[in-house]
Parts: sequence; structure tokens; C-alpha cells
Amino acid sequence: MRRFVDQLVSDRLVMAVIVLNATALVLHEMAPRGSSMRALWFWIDYACVVFFLVEALIKIRRDGWPLYWASGWNRFDFVVVIVSLPALLGPFFAVSQFAFVLILRLGRLFRLFRVLRFIPNLDHLVTGIRRALRASIGVFLALLLINLILAVMATLLFRDLDPEHFGDPISSGYSIFQVFTVEGWNDIAENLETRAAETESNNAKLLVAGTRIFFVAAVLIGGILGLSLANAVFVDEMMMDNTQTLERKVDALTEEVRRLRDDLKT
Amino acid sequence: MRRFVDQLVSDRLVMAVIVLNATALVLHEMAPRGSSMRALWFWIDYACVVFFLVEALIKIRRDGWPLYWASGWNRFDFVVVIVSLPALLGPFFAVSQFAFVLILRLGRLFRLFRVLRFIPNLDHLVTGIRRALRASIGVFLALLLINLILAVMATLLFRDLDPEHFGDPISSGYSIFQVFTVEGWNDIAENLETRAAETESNNAKLLVAGTRIFFVAAVLIGGILGLSLANAVFVDEMMMDNTQTLERKVDALTEEVRRLRDDLKT
Amino acid sequence: MRRFVDQLVSDRLVMAVIVLNATALVLHEMAPRGSSMRALWFWIDYACVVFFLVEALIKIRRDGWPLYWASGWNRFDFVVVIVSLPALLGPFFAVSQFAFVLILRLGRLFRLFRVLRFIPNLDHLVTGIRRALRASIGVFLALLLINLILAVMATLLFRDLDPEHFGDPISSGYSIFQVFTVEGWNDIAENLETRAAETESNNAKLLVAGTRIFFVAAVLIGGILGLSLANAVFVDEMMMDNTQTLERKVDALTEEVRRLRDDLKT
Amino acid sequence: MRRFVDQLVSDRLVMAVIVLNATALVLHEMAPRGSSMRALWFWIDYACVVFFLVEALIKIRRDGWPLYWASGWNRFDFVVVIVSLPALLGPFFAVSQFAFVLILRLGRLFRLFRVLRFIPNLDHLVTGIRRALRASIGVFLALLLINLILAVMATLLFRDLDPEHFGDPISSGYSIFQVFTVEGWNDIAENLETRAAETESNNAKLLVAGTRIFFVAAVLIGGILGLSLANAVFVDEMMMDNTQTLERKVDALTEEVRRLRDDLKT
Repeated sequence: MRRFVDQLVSDRLVMAVIVLNATALVLHEMAPRGSSMRALWFWIDYACVVFFLVEALIKIRRDGWPLYWASGWNRFDFVVVIVSLPALLGPFFAVSQFAFVLILRLGRLFRLFRVLRFIPNLDHLVTGIRRALRASIGVFLALLLINLILAVMATLLFRDLDPEHFGDPISSGYSIFQVFTVEGWNDIAENLETRAAETESNNAKLLVAGTRIFFVAAVLIGGILGLSLANAVFVDEMMMDNTQTLERKVDALTEEVRRLRDDLKT
Repeated sequence: MRRFVDQLVSDRLVMAVIVLNATALVLHEMAPRGSSMRALWFWIDYACVVFFLVEALIKIRRDGWPLYWASGWNRFDFVVVIVSLPALLGPFFAVSQFAFVLILRLGRLFRLFRVLRFIPNLDHLVTGIRRALRASIGVFLALLLINLILAVMATLLFRDLDPEHFGDPISSGYSIFQVFTVEGWNDIAENLETRAAETESNNAKLLVAGTRIFFVAAVLIGGILGLSLANAVFVDEMMMDNTQTLERKVDALTEEVRRLRDDLKT
Repeated sequence: MRRFVDQLVSDRLVMAVIVLNATALVLHEMAPRGSSMRALWFWIDYACVVFFLVEALIKIRRDGWPLYWASGWNRFDFVVVIVSLPALLGPFFAVSQFAFVLILRLGRLFRLFRVLRFIPNLDHLVTGIRRALRASIGVFLALLLINLILAVMATLLFRDLDPEHFGDPISSGYSIFQVFTVEGWNDIAENLETRAAETESNNAKLLVAGTRIFFVAAVLIGGILGLSLANAVFVDEMMMDNTQTLERKVDALTEEVRRLRDDLKT
Repeated sequence: MRRFVDQLVSDRLVMAVIVLNATALVLHEMAPRGSSMRALWFWIDYACVVFFLVEALIKIRRDGWPLYWASGWNRFDFVVVIVSLPALLGPFFAVSQFAFVLILRLGRLFRLFRVLRFIPNLDHLVTGIRRALRASIGVFLALLLINLILAVMATLLFRDLDPEHFGDPISSGYSIFQVFTVEGWNDIAENLETRAAETESNNAKLLVAGTRIFFVAAVLIGGILGLSLANAVFVDEMMMDNTQTLERKVDALTEEVRRLRDDLKT
């Protein structure tokens, strides 16, 4: 019995159920609404939820609550199970509130993050990402601030020319973000230039030139400099490990030589 | 009283006022023109300007002018206050000159750069950026020169085919910059090819082939090689720190061993 | 005779035949169907296949099967020859099955991979790529999972608005991949926004805002963070070599100093 | 007299003339054809050519031919002067051959590359670029080969669906290059899908799926993997310097310790 229970919560089986669950979620959405296949995949998904509930209960009973809760992954699994519970009641009640159903369905997707546990070297990767993000937080805050300032600036300058992209600071911020990804920046600029050229001829040429300088500056600052900097900070942090190992080794060696010198003096 | 004044110019309060100022600037532009909300946010912005003026005066009185002016951040704050002063008179005069109002409004945005002071590890970041920019100045100058040469070349070659993008060297330079960002280079090339194919059939095929070679070369040089190089120089400079620390340590160790050898000789 | 045979399978001649083969394949497709040039290039390609068959037989006879098979490149060549054999019969049978002919033709292209053998420093490059791919497998698996989750999420949210891009999870996965390459993400988002704005006004604004947040998050996670991370892991692995050389040198030095200390003690 | 001649060929004056030449070339193209401004700038350009000719002659006379020719920059200057000579005769003959005039005009642009000499740290940069290019030649050759194979493959598969992009291997190669730059890959794929969906329904779905797999693979291999690899090789080579300095220092230190040990033994 005990052996059977251990196998039930073994990594292999859990992994297999998560993959089955992912397949069910995808194929459920692939099947036409109201088809019997859709119902089948729905119930397989339902069975997976029940399996995860049972798995969590078995683990809690086997390890005791404090030990179970000590693991970050277990806590994640437990939250997923709790969030899934209302979905278990779904089929027995006619829930007409659309938004509520949607949130329940989206919630099911988070179960798939359990797969992350089985990615090789995940700890190393997570440590690297966390350190890289912490180190590049300054770059990203600076980019956010520059985005904000450029957005308000663009609102003041281009609001009347292109209300769709720069009608209010939030739309402008979104457009500036797009310019920062370098994607379609030329379309936005060209659109503005065309409308600027359509206005009275006095300031038109100046406006076109100003627009181009504004966008070239935004692309250079956000898309080229910003991303390169973030990238450089990432690489720097990723490689810190190796350099620190080397530094520790050189430090140890220096210590060794100093001790040798002390030995000689005495 | 003293304690109250100190709190008035404390980092926390200043930070809060800057965030309030940013919010006011954004929401002022969000509100429809002439609405009472817009007026409210305008006066909050006005209050922020007054606060910054008072803060600068308090700091100057507390620290004395030489000490105050010694800090780069204080100088920046002071300039921001000076530039804001005309805006304080704004509501009392009917300023009809549109361009003047626009410059005043844009000037207000620079106040937000005060937030930069509160970014964690800003000094480290600024040092890194400054060193990276100084090291990559050669790459950028070379790219600018190549841009200029390609622009004049494109003007000579494509002026009659596509006057909109390559009508004069300045438009060409802007188009070549666009090609260097790899964004929409294919649209510009395709446009040229279509027009080249429409001309008499003798040179048409040659023109299409030449156009393609021109653009492939421009994308490879500017967009792939240029950006990769700039990126590599950035990473190189960012990591110089670590290697220099290591070099210093190894140098110190070598010194230690040499001293040990001298000890033994005597 | 022996010398002639050795020259027949020498690297230079094989290289030349591969280049001839590549030229024949390209020019065969360039020539209009049914032209005599097309027939010429077809028979040159045919001759190349016969050459490769003869080359493999000579090498097997010269080196013996076990020695021949021990080399990875020879195995690759042998497989290419085996796959090419049916093509030799092609001209003598009227093969009407279109798909079969297409596969035979595509198969011929793999012969060109033999050129890779002549790339300078290929071993070093392949080692680097293999190590980089193994190290970044975690990042790519994580991106694949996030792609899957975002795809199902997008299917649930946007299926009715834009069935072309998000009609089923597989189409959604393809669209999300496109967003991860940052290419045309704004067009997909704009398309959704336009359709969202066309629906009844109650939720339209919320839907537009939600759509924008969804796409900004997808671009940031997949296109900026994901690619930067993969890039950083690549650089990290590529440079591991140098650092490891250094570490070994420092280790050897430490050993030297320790031995010196032992010498002194005795 | 001697002093005046030295000043005439001093770096400062040459630099100034190059900048004047660049300005003349740009403004010459900016001016409307037949205007007096255009003539003015043409003669300024003409004067610059004469100046460069005189400068080369003075330098050759001062330094003697062998010493002059020993410098790479001088050789470049000399070639520029030789290439410019026919242009000096231009105004005195009515050259009606359009292509000849165009080549002469394009040739003038190469004079601007003389500015490169004045870029700070150019030698360091050129060394880095040359080493990086040599190291990444394998990656670029492999990408070229993959481009060729994918191009022939795409010609066989998509020729009938989209003759404009994939009608012959050379057009296909250009389209695949475009996919490798990640720019507009989705438009090409979408275009193919639309046409595939228009064919008879039997294979249409399979064709759409195959097309998507083909393009996702091409983007991943060329645009993501290829560029990341080239980037990693660049950074690796750029940083080799620092690591080599460190290695030399550690080697020297090891030598020092060994000598110390030898001293002790004797």
C-alpha cells in the first residue's frame, strides 16, 4: 500500500499527468464547441485536477504539514490545488457569469507551470535570472522614466496630428514602448510626417524634421542603447560566477603565500 | 522648527512630491481640455513647482551656497527650479505665443529626471554607461560615416526612382538609418525594385540586382555587424571592472612572492 | 593506379565536386522547365551522385569497413549516398507520384552539408554551439512552456475577436511565437484593438487595455527577456573556455606554492 | 617655405578639407539641378580634389617614395587621388555616357573614408573587428550554406505558390536572407499561407502547417541562433585581450614561484 502511494506521488507520474493535462487543455480548445471530443478532454482535465488534489493530500499526510510547507514547490502546488477547487464544482452548477468562468479557465493554465520544476538546472537558471534582473532594475527603471517623459512630450507635440497614437499620455506610452522595441517605429513616424506635411506649409518642413529627430533619438535611446545596456548587464551578471570563483582562488593563493612567508620568518 | 525644515527637504518627501508631480503631469494631459479635473491637476503641478522652489531655498540657506553648489544633483535641481520660474507667472498673463507655451510645458517634464537620483546603484550604472559610450564612440562614428556615404550613394543611385525616400542626402540618411535598425528595410527595397522593374527592360534586371546587393550590404554592415560590434564593446567595458579587480589581485600576489624571494636572499 | 585513386578521393577534388553540385542544383532550378540547360544541369547533378557513390566505395575498400565507419563524417557521407541511390533510377522510370519526386529532390540538398566539413575551426564551433545549446535548453524549454500557456490564454481571450490568429491553440502558439520574435507584434495587437473597439462600448475600453497589457507582457517576457537571457547564456558558455584555462593555471600555481611550502618544512 | 608646406599637409588642415569635402558633396546633391549653388559646391569639391593631389605630391617629395608607400593610410590616399584624376577632366569634356559619370561620382565618396583615420582608438577597433570577423567566419559560412539549402528547398516547395519571392533560387536566397533578419518574415509566411489555403482543400491544411514549420525553423536557425552565435563569438574575441593579459600575468607569477623554489634547492 505504502509503495503504491509513493509511486502515486513520484516525480515521473506527476510529470506524466502534467503533460496529459497540458495536452487535454490544448485539445479541449482545439475541439469544436459542443462536440463529444471537447467533453472527453474536459473530463480528462477534471480527472487531472482530482489527481493533483489527491497527490497534495497524500504528500501532506506523509511528510506532515511543516515539512510539506517548507518546500517552495509544494507551496506552489498547494496554491494551484486550492485555486482549482472551485473548478471542480463547475459542472454541477450553471455558472452564467462569463467573466467568472473565464478567470477559472485561465487559472487552470497556471497548473502547467509545475512543469518548470522538471527543467534541468532550473535553480542555476533562476539564480542567474534573479541576479540579472536585480542588477538591471536600474536600466529598466531609467527606461520606464524615459518612456514616461517621451510619452508626455509626444502627447504635447503630436496630439493634434495623430490622436490615435498620441491622443493621451497612456496611448503615447504604449506607442513609445513600440518604438523602443524598434518594431514599426518607421510607420508611426511616417504617419506623423504625412499629416505634418498636410498642414499649412509654414511650419510643415520644421515639423517633419523635428518628428524625425524625435523618433531617431527615441530609437537610439530606447531600442539600441537601452537594450544593449540591459543585455550587457545580463551577460555581466551571468559571468560574475566564474570571475568570483577565480577571485576566491587567487585570494586563497595569496593567503597561502603569506602563510609561507610567516613560516619562513619564524 | 529646524526638525520640520529638515523633514521638508528629506529624500522621502521630495521623492513623494516628484511622484505626485509625475502623476499630475500625466493626468493633466489625460483630462479633457477645459474640464475642472484638468484645472485641479494644473494647480497641483503649480504647487509642486512652488515646493521645489522652497526646497532649493531652504537647502541653500542650510548648507550655504558653495556646499550646495558642489553637489551635481543640487545643481541639476537648481537649474530645474530656475527654468520653472516663468511657468509660475503663466496663469497671471495671457501668453498667446503657442511655441513659447509648448517649450514651457516641455520644460516641466525635465523635473521628472529628478527621480533618477533615487534609482538604486545609479552611480555604478552611470559609470558603466559613460565608459561604454566612450569606448564605443569609434563604432558609432564609423557607423555615422558609413551612413553618410551610403546616403550620398543612395541619393545618386535611387533619386529618380524613389524621390520620397532618397530625394536628397538628408532624406537618404534617414532612410539608411531606418535600414540600419533593420526595421522595414525590405519595404524600402521592394518599393525600389517595383519601380526599377517598371522602367525600360534593358537595365531593369541589373538595377533590381544592384538594389538588392546594396540593401543586403547595408543591413549586414549597419544592422548586423555594427550593432553586434557596439554590443560587444558594451559588454567588454561592463566586464572590464571584474577583470581589473582580478589583475590587481594577481599583481599584488606577484609582489608578495617577490618580497618573499627578497626575504630569502637576505 | 593507387595514386590516381587517392587523388580521386582527396579533399580538394571532393570539395570541388560539392561546389559543382551546388552550382548545378541552383542553376537547374534557375533554368526554365523543359530547356536544354535544365537537362544539362540535371545530368551534371546525376554525375555528381555517381561520383559520390564511387568515392564512398573506394574509401570503404581502402580503409576497410570498421575504420571507414568510425569517422562521423564518413557515416554522414554514406547516408547521403544511400539516400541518393533511388534518384539514380529516376530518369529510367516515369515516377508520377509528385510528393515522392519532391522528397527525392529535397533529399539531394542534404548532400551540400558535406561542405560544412571544410569550414575552418568547425570542431571548435560545433563544441561551442553544442555546449551553448545544452546550457540554454532550460531557457528554451521555459520559453516553450510560456508560449504554450500564453497561447491557450490568448485562445480563451481573443478567439472570438480574431479567429484567424487565435482561433485554436496551435494558431495562437504560432502567433505568440511571432510576438516573441518582436516582428509584427504591433499589427496583431492593433488588429485586436480595432475589433475590440467595435464591440459594445461597455467592456471595449477594458478589452483594449487588457489586450495592450497582454502584448506588452508577451513582448517583454519572450522578445526582450527571453532572447537576452539565451544570448547571455550563449556568451557565458562561449567564454567558459578562457576562464577554465585561467582556473587551471591558478590551480597549478597553488599546487606549486604548496609543494614549495612542503619543501621548506622538510 | 618648408614650414608652410608642412602646415599644408598637417592632419588638422587635411581633416578640415575632408569635412569641407563631405559638406560639399552633401550640399551639392541637396541643391536643385542647374542652380548656381550646385555649381558652387561642385567647384568646391573640385578644389578639394586638387588639394588632395597637391598634398600627396608634397608628401611623396618630402618623405621619398618608399617611406611614403610604407604607410597603409598613404597608400589608401594615393589610390583615392589616382581614382579622382579622371574627375578633374570632367568639366572640360562632354561625357555623355551616364554609367561612367555615375561611377565617377560614386568614386568621390570613397574619399570620405579618409575621415576614418581620425577616429580615436581606430587601430584597437580595427584589430578587434578583424579578429572577431576571422573567428566568426565559420558561423557566417555555415549561415550562408544554410541560406543556400533553404533557398533551393523553398524554390522547390513554394515556386508555384509565390513566384515573386521564391520563383528561382536567387530570389529565394534573398527572401531567406530577409527571414534571417527577422524583418517581415511573417508577411512572407502569411502570403504563402493565404495562397496555399486558396488551392484545393486536400493538401491545403498540410501545406499551411508545413509552411509555418519551415518559417519557424528558418527564423530560429538564422535569426535567433545564428545571430546570437555570431554575437557570442564577437564578444568572446573582444574580451580575449583581457583574459590573455591575465593569463600572461599568472604565467609570469608561476615562473617566479618556480625560480624561488630553484633558489631554495641550491
